Amino acid sequence: MISEKMKEYVKSSSAIRAMFEEGKRLAKIYGPENVYDFSLGNPSVEAPAEVKEAIIDILNNEDLNMVHGYMNNSGYDDVRTIIANSINNKFGTKFTEKNIIMTVGAAGGLNVIFKSLLNPEDEVIVFAPYFGEYRMYVANYDSKLVIVSPNTVDFQPNLAEFEEKITKKTKAVIVNSPNNPTGVVYSEETIIKLADILKKKQKEFGTEIYLISDEPYRELVYDNIEVPYLTKYYDNTIIGYSYSKSLSLPGERIGYLVIPDEATDSDLIISAANVATRILGFVNAPSLFQRVIAKCLDAEVDVSIYEKNRNLLYNSLVEYGYECVKPEGAFYLFVKSPIEDDIEFCNLAKKHNILIVPGTSFACPGYVRIAYCVSYDRIEKALPEFKKLIDEIRNN
Amino acid sequence: MISEKMKEYVKSSSAIRAMFEEGKRLAKIYGPENVYDFSLGNPSVEAPAEVKEAIIDILNNEDLNMVHGYMNNSGYDDVRTIIANSINNKFGTKFTEKNIIMTVGAAGGLNVIFKSLLNPEDEVIVFAPYFGEYRMYVANYDSKLVIVSPNTVDFQPNLAEFEEKITKKTKAVIVNSPNNPTGVVYSEETIIKLADILKKKQKEFGTEIYLISDEPYRELVYDNIEVPYLTKYYDNTIIGYSYSKSLSLPGERIGYLVIPDEATDSDLIISAANVATRILGFVNAPSLFQRVIAKCLDAEVDVSIYEKNRNLLYNSLVEYGYECVKPEGAFYLFVKSPIEDDIEFCNLAKKHNILIVPGTSFACPGYVRIAYCVSYDRIEKALPEFKKLIDEIRNN
Repeated sequence: MISEKMKEYVKSSSAIRAMFEEGKRLAKIYGPENVYDFSLGNPSVEAPAEVKEAIIDILNNEDLNMVHGYMNNSGYDDVRTIIANSINNKFGTKFTEKNIIMTVGAAGGLNVIFKSLLNPEDEVIVFAPYFGEYRMYVANYDSKLVIVSPNTVDFQPNLAEFEEKITKKTKAVIVNSPNNPTGVVYSEETIIKLADILKKKQKEFGTEIYLISDEPYRELVYDNIEVPYLTKYYDNTIIGYSYSKSLSLPGERIGYLVIPDEATDSDLIISAANVATRILGFVNAPSLFQRVIAKCLDAEVDVSIYEKNRNLLYNSLVEYGYECVKPEGAFYLFVKSPIEDDIEFCNLAKKHNILIVPGTSFACPGYVRIAYCVSYDRIEKALPEFKKLIDEIRNN
Repeated sequence: MISEKMKEYVKSSSAIRAMFEEGKRLAKIYGPENVYDFSLGNPSVEAPAEVKEAIIDILNNEDLNMVHGYMNNSGYDDVRTIIANSINNKFGTKFTEKNIIMTVGAAGGLNVIFKSLLNPEDEVIVFAPYFGEYRMYVANYDSKLVIVSPNTVDFQPNLAEFEEKITKKTKAVIVNSPNNPTGVVYSEETIIKLADILKKKQKEFGTEIYLISDEPYRELVYDNIEVPYLTKYYDNTIIGYSYSKSLSLPGERIGYLVIPDEATDSDLIISAANVATRILGFVNAPSLFQRVIAKCLDAEVDVSIYEKNRNLLYNSLVEYGYECVKPEGAFYLFVKSPIEDDIEFCNLAKKHNILIVPGTSFACPGYVRIAYCVSYDRIEKALPEFKKLIDEIRNN
């Protein structure tokens, strides 16, 4: 009796659940300490102490009817002002509270902006490898996902193919940098070229193409690399931000959209996003955590913990003979499968109690994603198994 | 550049915003203490002290990576078990954690279940007067809302018309008791008759019709009245619950769905609801507040405060000559407009600095909704204005 659309989703989600169940099965047989689960992007570094302090401070000093109550669908005015000012200080932008809409995480924000913009038959371009949920988010509004194939040299987007795939029907382009699953940060050079292509194509077709920047990993970067702020390169940019990773609050579902004045029909899009927040059933971003993040804008998780993980895992895997682009952000390694079939490789890894995700899930077969948001100790213990795994394959 | 669907929503939402702006304008001219805003269903009674205690207890004693982290899309297992047991204790049901899916409030839950069940062209029946958002929730999945006209005698649902309006395409029926906007509680007699009609029609058409019970006001009842638990009367019942009103936490967006084993295709619907939670962008209900409510199941807001408000407002308005069914729950009075045109009456009320909502917004013209979730003092101060308002109309 479930809806037609949901039938196939339920089927494919059973596959994911099967993997999850397999992990539980292995943990039962071998003990959880002997199973190396690198399959989930769940932050391992604890939320900074400021979060707890902010919660207690708010509960003790603010009006509780206001703290837990309804507010505008776009969020508390004062919180949005504080966020706008903070972005302006960091990136030299000129946003006000009007440009900020608080959302139920980045996933909620993406659904709000897609509901606001997309008509059935509109096209949305993504660059493989990409976060698989985009497929469903776009399908929620009956639009068509157009996939640009991966550039496996350095995992910067394939811009030549991108330009070819833009049509009159292209309504939006999703970018995600630092990237899930590759950990790659799109360079300023890439962003300038990408923006130039979009400007040219908008002119050619007389259309508006919105660049949707999904940025949950913005703060998780290493080696002092800078992540360009996209509204400065292209007017029709909309940012989807989340505190899930930057403050290790993924379960709290708190983030925001930035809809700049420079975007075409900005006021109308802001109004639409407000209504979409309401009618999709979000109503508003969780209220206490709106107030919490306003007090924690200068707080950050200890990124050096992830960096240490990255260095150990990357250096060791390369030493063993794995091939991988060194990630500059997020907490993923995207490793070339030593055999052609990445799903088969994940199955071989499972025999070593290693759980990783096939690149096929990200529209990039032949690779696997290793999430290193686990304890350093888990990585140390897993390394001999990674070595045995590649040695076995080589000796076959 | 916004989507076609959103264009009309943005237009009608500007009307609501205009009313809101009008309130702000009046407050500026006359001072906020002289404006009587009865337009919003935002709880005025503070969250019980147990909520704050639970938050601090959790932050001090539970693993923060778990408290703020991802979990299954359906929510923490232990929280769902505690909720299932609590429902079983109260209503003699036999739910387990499997039957409970934590949601981003009742609005999130309704969207999850509609995404799970509805195909385009399916019909969903509502009883006027009804909460206007249902219109949009159903339209999100391109299904058709079928409205049963109001029974203005006692605002129990019009069951004769209901029976006539059920067709082969009827996939779901929404009930909301205690009701927004009338405050009426559907009697057990009503529920038994409604269930009998549904059973008969399922048999006649060979279809499954799901009864969706939207229950944010379940705990806000007066005069010791009982609100029947609908899964006990009809197998294909799905409950959407929220803590927004019962614990005064509307901004926190926390609630749950109950999908009983007795519902046809229960397992499949549960799987679909899990996936829908994910792909609609909710991902999971806010994590800290899942843990909070598990510790606050026996806590309740002080309902006597609303009851005192109801008694004062109801008794006074009736004394002045207004006509109204005495509400047994929620925090609304649904009053007959002394003139035929309810929108015009709301405009006349505004001249007395009274803000109320026309029944037309709930598909029930000729009535107005007065939300008495305000302080007792506000009601006392507004009463002379309500009296002047009806006297003026009578003397015209």
